[in-house]
Amino acid sequence: MEKKLKLALIGARGHVGYVLRVLKDLPEVAVCAVASGSDESAEPLADNCRNLGHDPKIYADYISMLDTEKPDVVSVCGPFELHAKMCCDCLERNISVFCEKPIALTLPELDDIRAAYSKCDQEKVKIISMVGYRGEAPFRTAYDVVQKGLIGKVKMINARKSYKLGNRPAYYHKRATYGGTIPWVGSHALDWILWFGNANFKSVFAMHDTADNGGNGDLEMTALFAGVLENNIMASASIEYLRPAAAPTHGDDQVRIAGTAGVVEVMHGKTTLITATECKELELLPERGIFYDFMRHILYGEPCVVDAESTFELTRACLAARDYADLNKI
Amino acid sequence: MEKKLKLALIGARGHVGYVLRVLKDLPEVAVCAVASGSDESAEPLADNCRNLGHDPKIYADYISMLDTEKPDVVSVCGPFELHAKMCCDCLERNISVFCEKPIALTLPELDDIRAAYSKCDQEKVKIISMVGYRGEAPFRTAYDVVQKGLIGKVKMINARKSYKLGNRPAYYHKRATYGGTIPWVGSHALDWILWFGNANFKSVFAMHDTADNGGNGDLEMTALFAGVLENNIMASASIEYLRPAAAPTHGDDQVRIAGTAGVVEVMHGKTTLITATECKELELLPERGIFYDFMRHILYGEPCVVDAESTFELTRACLAARDYADLNKI
Repeated sequence: MEKKLKLALIGARGHVGYVLRVLKDLPEVAVCAVASGSDESAEPLADNCRNLGHDPKIYADYISMLDTEKPDVVSVCGPFELHAKMCCDCLERNISVFCEKPIALTLPELDDIRAAYSKCDQEKVKIISMVGYRGEAPFRTAYDVVQKGLIGKVKMINARKSYKLGNRPAYYHKRATYGGTIPWVGSHALDWILWFGNANFKSVFAMHDTADNGGNGDLEMTALFAGVLENNIMASASIEYLRPAAAPTHGDDQVRIAGTAGVVEVMHGKTTLITATECKELELLPERGIFYDFMRHILYGEPCVVDAESTFELTRACLAARDYADLNKI
Repeated sequence: MEKKLKLALIGARGHVGYVLRVLKDLPEVAVCAVASGSDESAEPLADNCRNLGHDPKIYADYISMLDTEKPDVVSVCGPFELHAKMCCDCLERNISVFCEKPIALTLPELDDIRAAYSKCDQEKVKIISMVGYRGEAPFRTAYDVVQKGLIGKVKMINARKSYKLGNRPAYYHKRATYGGTIPWVGSHALDWILWFGNANFKSVFAMHDTADNGGNGDLEMTALFAGVLENNIMASASIEYLRPAAAPTHGDDQVRIAGTAGVVEVMHGKTTLITATECKELELLPERGIFYDFMRHILYGEPCVVDAESTFELTRACLAARDYADLNKI
């Protein structure tokens, strides 16, 4: 098959796996080049691509890569603090972006991305962040139920993100390179809220705390989030690194959506629905990888599970919540 | 056996069952009298007592009952808006009180109770509210685990209270006679937080909303609570009447306590523990009725699972959260 799309990869931090995992299902996409976006070697990432049948060039400098290769799409998994700059560098060249979330670590950086995007041909150039849960089977299944109206009008969304702390690289220890636990871990929860709630935030409240973080510097061990969407849906999220070592999975990812006619809940990889007449575990829809979804959108105009505006709104909400939590007031 | 304690009952709203259920296990306690505390008949309540082998007099006026019978203990389950006055009337007569929660519907009323209690002989006169979950098997089991240090230092407490709305009597429709969903439903969740967290609140945040309440007047359908205890434990509670009719139980009562060394969680009547080395469902401790506990405390000085100070703090937190939510600001 003719390769229709040139993909370049910057960096291998975070969720680059979302890209690599679905390349086999995207014969239209060729990985033309990789760069680390930092002083790390890009060789392991190139190796991963080679194992998948691609033959990327390696660039020491990602800007040279963009200008020389002129890719159609770039995956941004570089250092967190460079996400925003890398997004802008791509958008300014009319290159679509699939960026690790959060796409910016400060609100002014987010403004820069919005400004760069406003100058793009938005029919052709797209930007989304790696909100991969939207493609996972239990979450897709819950979303389908909500969309079908089976729980009535959504009133309340409760989310939980609990991770094992494990050993964290040094860039997790500094706010400047990590961004904070609300943007990093909590962004998943806030994305569920925006997705299931189908509106932007009217207001947010949050707190976080670095105590007892096992020598991990600025890393906040615990955080709480509460917010109201513009359609008056209430939402909460509990966010922490307290998941014990013996837990069966790295993350305890839960979301519960309660409406006027029912409750749907994702927990332990299962999705359950309770309504006025039934209480049952649902058969899961198949997984649909978010990068696959994004590429089908760009290639064939198929609907994408997330768009630029919701990406920007998620980033805004995460950063506003973190900044509010920094004020340490109620 | 000689009857050592004279018990009088005011009203049958709410959790008077906590009293009736354990009378058979308390041969030392005699129900001397009942009054409704309102214009309702006290006859059904008296009947319940007779069926349990007691022979209470019926009073139309609870004040006359207090002055004539001079009971040692009174159960207060009258109209919610009279809880505070009834507590004061008892305390001023040096009578111990087992009161439906919340014991007051406004902060000034709570001050009145504190003032009345400060003048009592606190060695003999006790007041607690009906925080019956502290005696339920799954919650006692979780508390035992926390007390034994199995989850290390407590960092985060997440609670859920979800009720079926059903048909609510008219006194639920007015703030003046209902008090609000945070004090009524949320008080259970806030009590778990205070109990497991073992400290008073440093600050609280809350929101609530009466929309979509099915014609139930002022009744708030949904509420969210977040707070920080004086020992910096974070706590959240999701509180609502959205539990669907087909759910297996009236209430979805959950609490999760996450610490530096483990997580213990009460859900669906079960208690699970995860630590660095194990992940298991716990064998439950036996239930211990809270009124039984309270009576054994008064009769024999056995430790009681709750005391006056935590009763006052719970009430303060519920009312402060409700009042904050009324301000509708973040």
